[in-house]
Amino acid sequence: MDQLLFWLVPAASVLALGFAWHFHRQMMKQSEGTPQMIKIAAAVRRGAMSYLKQQYKIVGWVFLGLVILFSVMAYGFDVQNHWVPIAFLTGGFFSGLSGFLGMKTATYASARTANAARQSLNGGLRIAFRSGAVMGLVVVGLGLLDISFWYLLLNAVIPADVLTPTHKLCVITTTMLTFGMGASTQALFARVGGGIYTKAADVGADLVGKVEAGIPEDDPRNPATIADNVGDNVGDVAGMGADLYESYCGSILATAALGAAAFIHSGDTTMQYKAVIAPMLIAAVGIILSIIGIFSVRTKENATMKDLLGALGFGTNLSSVLIVVATFLILWLLKLDNWMWISCSVVVGLLVGIVIGRSTEYYTSQSYKPTQRLSESGKTGPATVIISGIGLGMLSTAIPVIAVVVGIIASYLFASGFDFSNVGLGLYGIGIAAVGMLSTLGITLATDAYGPIADNAGGNAEMSGLGAEVRKRTDALDSLGNTTAATGKGFAIGSAALTGLALLASYVEEIRIGLTRLGTTEINVGGTTVPLQDATFFDFMHHYDVTLMNPKVLSGMFIGSMMAFLFCGLTMNAVGRAAAHMVDEVRRQFREIKGILTGETEPDYARCVAISTKGAQREMVVPSLIAIIAPILTGLIFGVPGVLGLLIGGLSSGFVLAIFMANSGGAWDNAKKYVEEGNFGGKGSEVHKATVVGDTVGDPFKDTSGPSLNILIKLMSMVAIVMAGLTVAWSVF
Amino acid sequence: MDQLLFWLVPAASVLALGFAWHFHRQMMKQSEGTPQMIKIAAAVRRGAMSYLKQQYKIVGWVFLGLVILFSVMAYGFDVQNHWVPIAFLTGGFFSGLSGFLGMKTATYASARTANAARQSLNGGLRIAFRSGAVMGLVVVGLGLLDISFWYLLLNAVIPADVLTPTHKLCVITTTMLTFGMGASTQALFARVGGGIYTKAADVGADLVGKVEAGIPEDDPRNPATIADNVGDNVGDVAGMGADLYESYCGSILATAALGAAAFIHSGDTTMQYKAVIAPMLIAAVGIILSIIGIFSVRTKENATMKDLLGALGFGTNLSSVLIVVATFLILWLLKLDNWMWISCSVVVGLLVGIVIGRSTEYYTSQSYKPTQRLSESGKTGPATVIISGIGLGMLSTAIPVIAVVVGIIASYLFASGFDFSNVGLGLYGIGIAAVGMLSTLGITLATDAYGPIADNAGGNAEMSGLGAEVRKRTDALDSLGNTTAATGKGFAIGSAALTGLALLASYVEEIRIGLTRLGTTEINVGGTTVPLQDATFFDFMHHYDVTLMNPKVLSGMFIGSMMAFLFCGLTMNAVGRAAAHMVDEVRRQFREIKGILTGETEPDYARCVAISTKGAQREMVVPSLIAIIAPILTGLIFGVPGVLGLLIGGLSSGFVLAIFMANSGGAWDNAKKYVEEGNFGGKGSEVHKATVVGDTVGDPFKDTSGPSLNILIKLMSMVAIVMAGLTVAWSVF
Repeated sequence: MDQLLFWLVPAASVLALGFAWHFHRQMMKQSEGTPQMIKIAAAVRRGAMSYLKQQYKIVGWVFLGLVILFSVMAYGFDVQNHWVPIAFLTGGFFSGLSGFLGMKTATYASARTANAARQSLNGGLRIAFRSGAVMGLVVVGLGLLDISFWYLLLNAVIPADVLTPTHKLCVITTTMLTFGMGASTQALFARVGGGIYTKAADVGADLVGKVEAGIPEDDPRNPATIADNVGDNVGDVAGMGADLYESYCGSILATAALGAAAFIHSGDTTMQYKAVIAPMLIAAVGIILSIIGIFSVRTKENATMKDLLGALGFGTNLSSVLIVVATFLILWLLKLDNWMWISCSVVVGLLVGIVIGRSTEYYTSQSYKPTQRLSESGKTGPATVIISGIGLGMLSTAIPVIAVVVGIIASYLFASGFDFSNVGLGLYGIGIAAVGMLSTLGITLATDAYGPIADNAGGNAEMSGLGAEVRKRTDALDSLGNTTAATGKGFAIGSAALTGLALLASYVEEIRIGLTRLGTTEINVGGTTVPLQDATFFDFMHHYDVTLMNPKVLSGMFIGSMMAFLFCGLTMNAVGRAAAHMVDEVRRQFREIKGILTGETEPDYARCVAISTKGAQREMVVPSLIAIIAPILTGLIFGVPGVLGLLIGGLSSGFVLAIFMANSGGAWDNAKKYVEEGNFGGKGSEVHKATVVGDTVGDPFKDTSGPSLNILIKLMSMVAIVMAGLTVAWSVF
Repeated sequence: MDQLLFWLVPAASVLALGFAWHFHRQMMKQSEGTPQMIKIAAAVRRGAMSYLKQQYKIVGWVFLGLVILFSVMAYGFDVQNHWVPIAFLTGGFFSGLSGFLGMKTATYASARTANAARQSLNGGLRIAFRSGAVMGLVVVGLGLLDISFWYLLLNAVIPADVLTPTHKLCVITTTMLTFGMGASTQALFARVGGGIYTKAADVGADLVGKVEAGIPEDDPRNPATIADNVGDNVGDVAGMGADLYESYCGSILATAALGAAAFIHSGDTTMQYKAVIAPMLIAAVGIILSIIGIFSVRTKENATMKDLLGALGFGTNLSSVLIVVATFLILWLLKLDNWMWISCSVVVGLLVGIVIGRSTEYYTSQSYKPTQRLSESGKTGPATVIISGIGLGMLSTAIPVIAVVVGIIASYLFASGFDFSNVGLGLYGIGIAAVGMLSTLGITLATDAYGPIADNAGGNAEMSGLGAEVRKRTDALDSLGNTTAATGKGFAIGSAALTGLALLASYVEEIRIGLTRLGTTEINVGGTTVPLQDATFFDFMHHYDVTLMNPKVLSGMFIGSMMAFLFCGLTMNAVGRAAAHMVDEVRRQFREIKGILTGETEPDYARCVAISTKGAQREMVVPSLIAIIAPILTGLIFGVPGVLGLLIGGLSSGFVLAIFMANSGGAWDNAKKYVEEGNFGGKGSEVHKATVVGDTVGDPFKDTSGPSLNILIKLMSMVAIVMAGLTVAWSVF
């Protein structure tokens, strides 16, 4: 029965990919509209694809370097599993592929969405949402495909008697974490590179176009407008796709590894197997429910905005409710020990995600007081907008942190049978809460990815001169996307915190394997020796003195906190620099190319695209490499306690910093929109100008630095896990 | 000999207060200048004093509440030492007194400085610097006075046989930490209240006066100008005085407590005594060397700016070099075990302070690339100034964090005899490094406090119409103060990180005392029981499982990180709100009172003073109370592991956040000055306007939220220490 149940995982994966293909084909059948629309869509597509190719080239070199390093470690020094280099590659490949396919679909869908919006709001919604669903389903489909493939392969090739029977699944699951690291590496480059690209173009286009020349957004006279639309695709679509592929796989893999570790002492291979496949099964069921949810998003013709929001909300809520029921069912079918309480942990994860999403909405939507007050602060100029926006973002960290803390404690207690000392199962509970949070990613990502498609459709409509009515419809779709995206972001950030914790535990498990490889058979725990294979988490903590009084732990924590800020500083500066180049170029074109502003001459779009591409590529390398190097270096200097300090310091600071930046940025964006809706003087007023400054500052906050932090947190953990063998073998202190 | 050496401590304290009195009298003998100058100085003094009275009233109520709480705990439930409530009061009183005396001197000195500057730059420097020295010496003098008093009193009243002979000094030193908590509480209110006051006035005055009306800074036509000058006194003088009193005492008390704890097992009361008084002796010698340094600041008549900088630098450097020599000497005289290496720990502390100061200077001074580039980013408007400034601040966290990490490891290894497992002495090394860093506070604070005096002198000169030449001289003095203040800030932030770590250890020590009070005689450490009096730090960590895998520790860390952001968010918003009221009032006066801008009518200064006062008082209560409540609540829910997580999470995030905010703010300030010096278009250009936005945003960063974080970090630890008895007796989990 259990073996049979596993086949649900590859089956769900194939199902997801099949529906993705179906939605893609459906979308392709629609008309792209007027020749002008086709031309613009093609230009955006060309720019996006050429950027992605360049990015993959650079990432390819980084991957080559890392694969060589891993190969030396695995084949040369034997401090690593032999499958590591290849697993690493497939993770990177599939993560990139998710972004690529999602983006390809998005660039074909935007003109079609605009064209459909010429008829009705509803038509536009359907195309945009179904195209977003392609991305959602590709991510979850490829994720489970990679997981199934490696699980089956490693099961076949790794001998049953590695050390003890329960060790086999530990080796399998920790090896699989390597492909998580590949996915994280790819995702970090995609998020950082894409984030820099899109915000350099956006900031550049806004600063000169909107503020100086006074032309509307997406106006074809603005030389940076194509680059801006390309940016939406490479940043908000391809970047997000790679990002969530990484989050999704990361949470499942970390939980599987914890499941394997929790039963390492008991010798109970059956229960161990169940604990390993449980997160995969929940994800598989989540796919099916996501597809049901996607199909339930139906609206009548001539639907109002409220109907649309209701339809999208119905789809995601339906999937969420069903997954709760399905989780209890599947874990009961699996006959997992303590299945009822572990199911409760899954529900806790879902609830935490929803609370974070709601809190994000409250702090960033113009329907609520905080953002309205932020708009009002524009009365006293841009400086007070910035001060208030930063204040708002910092305050907004309280609810998500409290939600996560309650979630950690609750999911830990449920899964551990209300016993704090049952660390293995407790942490498993935290991991499976993250899986629960992301289980319906298929549909939440669909509502998320549909945003940039609608945004691009608006751009296409504006540039093709489709008229105010169509633009109004695409704006409505876009604004709808902003609201649903808030929930999506909540899930991404929340799951990063929980997955980060689960990965800490996997790191400790990897230490055990590293020690085994070195021939160590027992460790010293406070004077007594404990056989390595029987050592608990607690024993490892005490053996390495990973307590808060160890200066190595404390040093690691300071470095971890600093890493979060340093990383954001690097990406913020990157956007600042790249945007400055863009501004110079746009100003130059307005100055030197006669007739742009009167609409007689076409600006040189390609040059702006090239500037963003070059800027993003140059600037993405340093922050990404730092994320890889920091845990290796910390490990070599401070050993295991230092690395754990680094990871937890980076996790706690990075999580809070990420919420702050995302919410400040979101609130600034919507505060500007609130003014544009006619409040405090409306468009063109001094208050509007002040809020535009806030919006511009918020761009890299919410779309470059903030979301990249989620990946940074996990990538540092994954690097630490993969490099654990080295850390164990050698460190200065 | 040892007993004799101790008397150096009260002697140095009296010496410091004597010289402070001398400098104050010298200053008072000078002329305050023209009747107009006298009138303005009196108005500022009146405003400052009336604010301080109001603040003390509110703080008085808070203290009353806390004293009642402590009394109930101490006399009612017996979970606390009986001296706690009174010690708490004296700390608060002396901290407030330091700020009050420093501010009183400053408000008398500003007009006299301006008047002396009418003759020569040198005359102005001498008065301003000597008046700053009053503050420096009052802080260190009162600090050591309070320490000596309590040390002698508790020595006399606590019986020698509390538990074991070595326990007496533990009880004494941890009780003395309570007066540290009193000082921290007072300091937090002073910093937050003063910070909100000064920045509300500053931002309000700038936004309407400089940006909208286009009149210069400190122009008498600006209704907020008196409030702005009052703000410099209540925020930058009184607030800083209370703050550094707290830092100074905190580092000495925490180190003394660690010294007592390090010898608790050995039973070696002689060495324990030596370890306790060593930090006090270093501080006492530091006072003497500070006075020597202050006297060495001499300049010839007609000194250039460079001469002045050289003179100030010579004074502080001389004190620093002498303290290195004196430390080796005094610890050798004391015959402290391992005196040579412990002296090295002191030197490490000094070096870390200097590195942080230099790094601050590099990132925030317009003489270096980062700030110059920040000015240049103004070419593309205010948004890029904000993005680049935030990027700069975040990047600037790297060097200080690395310096502190190297400092932690080095001072720990030196003091512990290069043995990581010798936790007691290792942490003592970290503590004594903080003492070393602050040992010459007498003179570093003098160079720091002289800045706002010079600033106010400039204001007085401008409002009294003393002419461009005098204003130029006071500007030169002011700008000199900005440079020296960078070093001062480095010491304040760096010492907070090290003291924070030392306080963690004191917390654990207090847990032992709390358990003793409950009648516990042994604790369980991994299956074996250890007598409570013999338990090491390591044992406590394992007994309470304060490891990085404990969800209570992890939850505490998330909350700690969040606390730092929440606190900053509250204070940022407070400044935003108070400044908005100020802007409204200034605009109203310009609109309603005819003849202000032509200089015919005098604006209603008093009303602006009242607005800042009211705003600061209303807004300071919530953030300050949260800092006190968070550790209590965390302790009641998550117990000891949760509290330790909270403290270390708050420390690591808060430290990095404080550096980021201080440096971003400082760089924005100087980027504006760099433009005003004639670069990128100079005053009145678009670039200038953009950098003014940066400067305004930076005001609460560097003068409200950033510096308050240093206190927050320590206050949370102190509250935890004082409340340890309660946490041990009862918690939910």
